[in-house]
Order: sequence, then structure tokens, then C-alpha cells
Amino acid sequence: MKTILLQFDTDSRASSFDRVVAVDAGVEELFSYAGINKDNVTGLVHGAIFTRGPAKLNNTAIFVGGSNVGDGETLMKHVQNTFFGPMRVSVMMDSNGCNTTAAAAVVAAKSHLQLNGCSAVVLGGTGPVGQRVAQLLAMEGSDVLLVSRSEERAETACAAIRSKTSTGSLTPAGASTESEFMELCSGRKLVVAAGAAGVCFLTEGSLNSLPDLDVAIDLNAVPPTGLADVGAMDKGKELAGTICYGALGVGGTKMKVHKQAIAGLFESNDRVFDTEEIYALALQVAGLTDK
Amino acid sequence: MKTILLQFDTDSRASSFDRVVAVDAGVEELFSYAGINKDNVTGLVHGAIFTRGPAKLNNTAIFVGGSNVGDGETLMKHVQNTFFGPMRVSVMMDSNGCNTTAAAAVVAAKSHLQLNGCSAVVLGGTGPVGQRVAQLLAMEGSDVLLVSRSEERAETACAAIRSKTSTGSLTPAGASTESEFMELCSGRKLVVAAGAAGVCFLTEGSLNSLPDLDVAIDLNAVPPTGLADVGAMDKGKELAGTICYGALGVGGTKMKVHKQAIAGLFESNDRVFDTEEIYALALQVAGLTDK
Amino acid sequence: MKTILLQFDTDSRASSFDRVVAVDAGVEELFSYAGINKDNVTGLVHGAIFTRGPAKLNNTAIFVGGSNVGDGETLMKHVQNTFFGPMRVSVMMDSNGCNTTAAAAVVAAKSHLQLNGCSAVVLGGTGPVGQRVAQLLAMEGSDVLLVSRSEERAETACAAIRSKTSTGSLTPAGASTESEFMELCSGRKLVVAAGAAGVCFLTEGSLNSLPDLDVAIDLNAVPPTGLADVGAMDKGKELAGTICYGALGVGGTKMKVHKQAIAGLFESNDRVFDTEEIYALALQVAGLTDK
Repeated sequence: MKTILLQFDTDSRASSFDRVVAVDAGVEELFSYAGINKDNVTGLVHGAIFTRGPAKLNNTAIFVGGSNVGDGETLMKHVQNTFFGPMRVSVMMDSNGCNTTAAAAVVAAKSHLQLNGCSAVVLGGTGPVGQRVAQLLAMEGSDVLLVSRSEERAETACAAIRSKTSTGSLTPAGASTESEFMELCSGRKLVVAAGAAGVCFLTEGSLNSLPDLDVAIDLNAVPPTGLADVGAMDKGKELAGTICYGALGVGGTKMKVHKQAIAGLFESNDRVFDTEEIYALALQVAGLTDK
Repeated sequence: MKTILLQFDTDSRASSFDRVVAVDAGVEELFSYAGINKDNVTGLVHGAIFTRGPAKLNNTAIFVGGSNVGDGETLMKHVQNTFFGPMRVSVMMDSNGCNTTAAAAVVAAKSHLQLNGCSAVVLGGTGPVGQRVAQLLAMEGSDVLLVSRSEERAETACAAIRSKTSTGSLTPAGASTESEFMELCSGRKLVVAAGAAGVCFLTEGSLNSLPDLDVAIDLNAVPPTGLADVGAMDKGKELAGTICYGALGVGGTKMKVHKQAIAGLFESNDRVFDTEEIYALALQVAGLTDK
Repeated sequence: MKTILLQFDTDSRASSFDRVVAVDAGVEELFSYAGINKDNVTGLVHGAIFTRGPAKLNNTAIFVGGSNVGDGETLMKHVQNTFFGPMRVSVMMDSNGCNTTAAAAVVAAKSHLQLNGCSAVVLGGTGPVGQRVAQLLAMEGSDVLLVSRSEERAETACAAIRSKTSTGSLTPAGASTESEFMELCSGRKLVVAAGAAGVCFLTEGSLNSLPDLDVAIDLNAVPPTGLADVGAMDKGKELAGTICYGALGVGGTKMKVHKQAIAGLFESNDRVFDTEEIYALALQVAGLTDK
């Protein structure tokens, strides 16, 4: 029996990136659906769960993707709510690469830092990737400062994350000028920039003024990057005593994690790959699993 | 040369159910098209018949599906009218599972009853599945009472069926209350309920009042079922002297027939799998072929 | 690693013709996208070039198709402009079969004529296929008369072709009556009819009045054909001293060239199959390569 992956994409065309990765992960049949939302997905899920007997349903799985992470989260919930009893298939959510990117970033940090108790700051912390980075750092026991242009939104994001984890600590902060960003980063060991395209938090030369900073990660691949000192290709490059990672520098891990998650979907019919599970996989991929 | 199935679905998204079944039936390449109707299908059929020489066209086939059976019937005709001479491929029509469901239901009945001369009643007989059940029963020589809320529509359906078969007999009837339904079922050996979702013809305990009834088949999978005494999972279960089949109880046969029909499409380039041909296949699958 | 072809179709449904040919050319995974234009293609190209390392990008390729050649040309340019450095995949453009048809037609002529210095006339020369036929003939050194209903459009087409080749000669002409068409064909050795469906340039018996004509090719498959004396199935058939080819007569070569071009896309990650490259391939297929 062939493995089948149903790709539910919330955009008007199914991501070619996700399709290539699915094929390279070994999926034998890929059913790509575009423009999927909670109102049109139920019948498609039924077609997935009612065609092969429960004992064979590990050969069918669902991937939720698309550029809009909020839409993906809603769709992911609806897909899971459509399952009942043994009538379910494994499902992964990675809209806009949010989960695999966040996992790869935190794994990069963990390969250099003791995250438990680590003072970290997440710039652009209310965006989909930023929130996930903050969540994973808190789960690792870090003391996380979550920064947004709006302190109110930062607080909302912190509250949402606190409902998911009781470890670490989360502190919201609002900032919009470079001097504010510098002040918030000062004394921190880890900074992760996860802002929108075109937003530069720290201009060139900033790392020189952050002597306590051990690791700087910028998840923006398109110039201007969020941390001007960090290049998109940087992968553990040292600058002014800080180890730097750019978006493409964590891309290798991200891609491996994405493929292994897809492959993992077919191990049983009840796997769920969302933020936490994808991070656990990223730790394995990086050889960082606690034993 | 790989086998290619072109799935023409009249809905805005191609049925994932039909896609999974196609893959499980061994189709090597599945081209799924959604939103197909008579106005946009011609070029797609041309692409199917003009690409491989006539001698190889048995490797290409067409499946017509979607939730609307009337639209599927129109599309099926148009697809067949686009063929000419040897420029044709095999084609199957099973919108909303109408043909495979009807075939599986009648085969279930035939495994317990002598259908020739059998007094049968089809409740919800003007719907797409009901009409096909009535047609197949008439072809088997049954004396069929076709029941609808509207006697006029019942008469129209009977006339349509009579144009397709000269065996058996078809009698239209209008009914809308349970006492009317009970009266029409009284003395009959076979009742098949093929009404719309949510329509209950006979409430709980009715089978006790139908001592002549040998077989009761309810094709509605979603509660409330059409015959309250019949469970969706029933498969030959006896209750009050009546053998009962629910929608899922005939589902195994339906699925086998669907797959074998898909496989049969590639045996030559001129096969047609519509109501009669699919029933003939169902008889084979069930080991009921007259010899 | 599986070969992946991304089909970018400018029509609202991806051509089933192009899909079947892609499968028969050996493509292992076909990602078909419909309704593609310059505004929605960039992300899809990024997904193609950013998923596999540059060293493996020869396993991914792009096909641009659809019924509108102008839209395909615009899309082809945009796809190529999205590539940068080693981040590119091979790409083929054959909207409405324009390149493979033109190549097959000129190859048919070349198998009978010395094209260098040959006096040729292209009727319907401003259409997508006609322009390509004229371009290829000029590249072969022919003296080409490019005929259109509008002399102004004929001149524009000639100027466009001259910017692509310095060999041969191109002369525009306007004509709209049969006597004008006959006069322009008189004394020429090769005539290619590439007009729109339904346009008949030369009525039955015309070949008798063109004693100098050696080869007549009509690329219109649907009656009325552009040259009434030429049948769609003609393949080197002689009539009144003229060797005739119809649309289906050049179809075998066209199909072989189409498949070999698709296969050639995967030889490296920087192949471009447009008019000239597809013609070079057609010469190979026909065994006419100059050595």
C-alpha cells in the first residue's frame, strides 16, 4: 500500500516548496489541495480516514501549510476535530515553515548555550515564528524577554505561551527604536530576531556594543536582515565574540527536520507534529537529545 | 507505459475518497481535475485521446465523479460524445458513489433472496442511488414498488427505468407518513431505504410488524438512518426474522467493486463502467455470477 | 532523488496533453499548476530552486504551457528572471505546442529541401507558430516571405525576427484574397500555412498552378485546412509534383521532440528549451544534424 500525503494549503496555490520536500521525504503519492479552510476541509478529511481500514491508516497522512500561520492553526484544529476514535491519520502543521524554522533556530542556540536559565530576547516576538521560538526557549527553561512594537501584544503573546508551558519565564516588552532594542538586548546571552521582512532591529556594528551576547540568530533571509551584523549564510560564524546564525545558516537543519517529520507521519496513524513535537525531532536531528 | 487516470470531478475540489481508491486500485498516475463540466472538459478529453496511439490508449482512462449525480451524468455523456472511432479511452462514472453503492446493495439482497419475481420496495426511490437500485432490481426480474414523497416524480423515475430494461415490473407510489410507508412495505420481501440524509422512513420496532420481510437494507450511514432498526454497521445481522444491512455493512463490497472497476478500465480502451457494468462486476466480486 | 517537473499553465486548467507527454517522457513527479501568470509564479519558482542544493537542481525543471502563446512568453521571461547564480532549474516553453510544431514543420521541409537560399513563404506568418517557422527558416538561410492580412503586422514580425538572426532574409507582405496569396506563393519552393483555425489560404486545385512548389506544409489540423489540397494526415505525400505534410503528418516528429526536450531538461540545471533549442533537438530527432 502506497503512502499518501494530503497537503492542505491555505493559499490559492499549493506551496511548491512543501511539495518538493514531501517528495524528497519519500511520500509516494501527494494529493495537493489549495485554498483549503475549515469550511471545505471536512469532506477531504473524511476521504482520508474512510478509505483504508484503521489498521492501514498509518499509510495516509495530512500536512497543513500555506503562508498564513493563523489560518494554518485554525485549519489544523479543524482537521484534528474531524477525527474520531481510530478514524484518524497523522498530521503535521508547518505553515510558512513556522515550526521547523523555530525549532531549527532554538536547536542552533542550544548547540552553543545552556538554555536552562539562559537570558534570551526574542525580537519580533509576537509573529508566528517569534512566538514559537519564545515558547520553545521557555520550555527549555530560559528567561525570555519577548519584544514587540506593541507591549500589549507582547503581553498577550506571553500569556498564550504561559498557558502551554510552566517552565522558564516570559517577560513582555514594547520597543520601536534601535536604542530601545539595544537596551533590551544588553546583558542578554541570546538574541533571536524573528521580525517581518524589511524590519531591521540592530544596525551594523551593534554586536560590538553587546559584550555579553554569546549567540545571535537572525531568521530573516531577505535583506535588510533584522540584525545587520548577521549574514543570511552565517552558520556559527563568530563576530565580536558572538556566534552568528542567519536564516540560511539554520536552513539545513530546518530542511532535515521537515523531511524527518514527514517521514514520521507514517509510523502510526495518530502522530501530531506541531511546535513541540517538531522541536523534539530537531533535537534528535542535531544529536542534542537529553539522555 | 504508465497507466494514467484522469479524474473529472464536478465539485470545486477533487474527491480525496476517489483519489485514495484510485491509488489503491493500482493507478500509476492520477490527474485530478476539479470544477469540471461539459463546457471545459472537451480539451481535457482531447489531451487524453490524442497523446498515445490508439493501440496504447488502454493505458489511459477517465473517472467521472463529484457529489452531484445529475452533473456527473451530464458530464459522462459529454465525455463519451467527445470520443470518435478508435480515439477513445475507457470511462467510469460513480458520482457520490451512486453506482457502486447501488450495486453493493442489490448484491447484498441477491445473496439472500431469489430476486427474480421478488416483491421489493425502494424507499427514496427517485434519488440517484434509489433509482439505480430500482433499475438493477427490475433487471433482475423483481416486482419493484418505487416510493417517493411525490407520486409524480416516482412515475417519472419508473418511466426512465422502463426505457432501460424490459424485465421485472415497476410501480410508482407516493407516500410521506410512516403509516403509508409501513403499508407499502407490508407483504414485501425486500426493502431498500435510499433516502436523503436525515429522512427516517420506519421508526424503531417497525421490523416486528413486517413479518414477510426477509431483507432490509438501509444505505444511509449518518443517523438518523432511514430504517431505525438497522444499524450502519449491520452486515447480514438478523433482527425479528429479517436480515439487515447498513451503509457500512455494504461498504466492503462497494469498495472492492470500485477498485475492480478502476482496474478494469485499463483492460481495453473502450470499457464503460456505468450502472449495469458496475453491477455485473459486483456480482463477480460477490461470487454470484450466473453460470 | 526523483525528477520533478513543475508545469506552469496559463489556462484555468493544466493541459492534460502536456501532462500525459510529461509522464511518457519519464518525469517521475509532475506538479501541475493552472492559472499561472507573472504575479503568482515567483513563489512557485522559489520553491523549485530553494529546496534541493544547487548540485541536485538538475532533478527539478519547469515547463511553461497553456493555450495563449503571448502569455506563455511573458511567463517564460519572468521565470528566467527569477533565477540567479546557480539557483536555477532548466525550463521549457511550448505554449499551444508553438515551438515543437514549428520545429517539426521546418524539419519536415529540410528533409526534402536545401533550406539555405530556399525561397519560402509563410502564410499566417504573424501568429505564434508562423513567426517561429519564419524565424527558423531565416536561421537556416532561407529567403522568407512573411505574409499576414496586415502588412504592418508582417513588418513588425519581420523586425522582431531580424533581431534574433542575421542569416537569411525576411520580407513582409500583406494579403487577404486568394489571388494575392497565389501571387505571393508563385515561384516559391516552400509554402507553410500557419493561419488561425478556419482560415483557408489556397482552395482545392491550387497546387496545380504552382509548378515551382516543392514542399507544402499545412499546420492546421481542423478542417477547413489552410491549404485545401493538403490533408491533415499527409506525411510526404506527393500531389501535382509537390510533397505535402499536414498537421498530423508532422505530429509524430512534434511528439518525439516534445518528449526528448522534457527528458533533456534533467541533464543539467541550466537548460533552456525555447524556439532555437527545440529546433536543434528536432534536427537530431530527424537525423538531420549537420556534422
